[in-house]
Amino acid sequence: MFDNSSAEPFAKGLVQVFTGDGRGKTTAALGTVIRALGHGLKVCIIYFIKGDSPSGERSILSQLPNVTVLSYGSGEFIDPANVKPKEKEQAEQALTAAREAMLGGNYNIVVLDEVNLAAAWKLIEVDEIIRLIKDKPQNVELILTGRQADTKIVQNADLVTEMLKIKHSYDKGISARMGIEY
Amino acid sequence: MFDNSSAEPFAKGLVQVFTGDGRGKTTAALGTVIRALGHGLKVCIIYFIKGDSPSGERSILSQLPNVTVLSYGSGEFIDPANVKPKEKEQAEQALTAAREAMLGGNYNIVVLDEVNLAAAWKLIEVDEIIRLIKDKPQNVELILTGRQADTKIVQNADLVTEMLKIKHSYDKGISARMGIEY
Repeated sequence: MFDNSSAEPFAKGLVQVFTGDGRGKTTAALGTVIRALGHGLKVCIIYFIKGDSPSGERSILSQLPNVTVLSYGSGEFIDPANVKPKEKEQAEQALTAAREAMLGGNYNIVVLDEVNLAAAWKLIEVDEIIRLIKDKPQNVELILTGRQADTKIVQNADLVTEMLKIKHSYDKGISARMGIEY
Repeated sequence: MFDNSSAEPFAKGLVQVFTGDGRGKTTAALGTVIRALGHGLKVCIIYFIKGDSPSGERSILSQLPNVTVLSYGSGEFIDPANVKPKEKEQAEQALTAAREAMLGGNYNIVVLDEVNLAAAWKLIEVDEIIRLIKDKPQNVELILTGRQADTKIVQNADLVTEMLKIKHSYDKGISARMGIEY
């Protein structure tokens, strides 16, 4: 279906972080995935928090070749001040899946969606993420998204972008819209 | 091919801007497009500057339903201090196409890729973009990307996100990699 003749994976994969309160963290990772798929690269996306909630991107991704989507978490509200054992367990499972995807040799790019927030909420330990980064094979690109990226994560990344909210009409009371925000 | 049964376009389309020196402006727009396509919405993406240069995203987009990609510009280096008439002409054509896409009633989302930069480089007038924004039908979402978004554009937008470069290993001399940066 796709012309993969140009596929020639990069030799040096980096660690990218998209963080900040602004829009575009998950969508920037998603756009990067689409671009990579267009070049015939292989991608694994691991959702740490969003779970199986219906979401437009998954409907498309599930029909594209060379991309695996793994979802963890219930998609329900998590209270950072009162994290449940079940929630920690699911995030730990996501982390295990991330390690397997990264080390298994089947993917050029591994995306860890909301992993920064999972660490900020103490669903997983920051040090576990740092260990993952340090164990990254040279030819794998690792992309971490989510608000509140820990300083240690920033220090260990190659590319860090903060999405800064300059103006946001949610503040004017417009609620999330299907097809745009989810 | 895709399940569009959930398609129910939003009633109130907004004007979104992704700007700043950091990564993720075009990819955030692209990710938003994928999400929207997953809900059965119809999208038109207009490239103002990049032209027909090979690019991973276009390889995928060209094979998805409900998305039209229009490319303007040569994709070659533009010297902002010495803009050529041909370059202005192509950007004007992109703007005309944007207006038609926005007003034609066929699209829920219209993406203007690098339109901010086209205005900053004076390929087109900022006031023409403002007129476009003011003429936007209520049910169309307009997404503008590119560095150096003019203050007037920011004032007339609903959602503005600045991609801020926190850390960038290009500064360490790693060149752009196929499948990731293009």
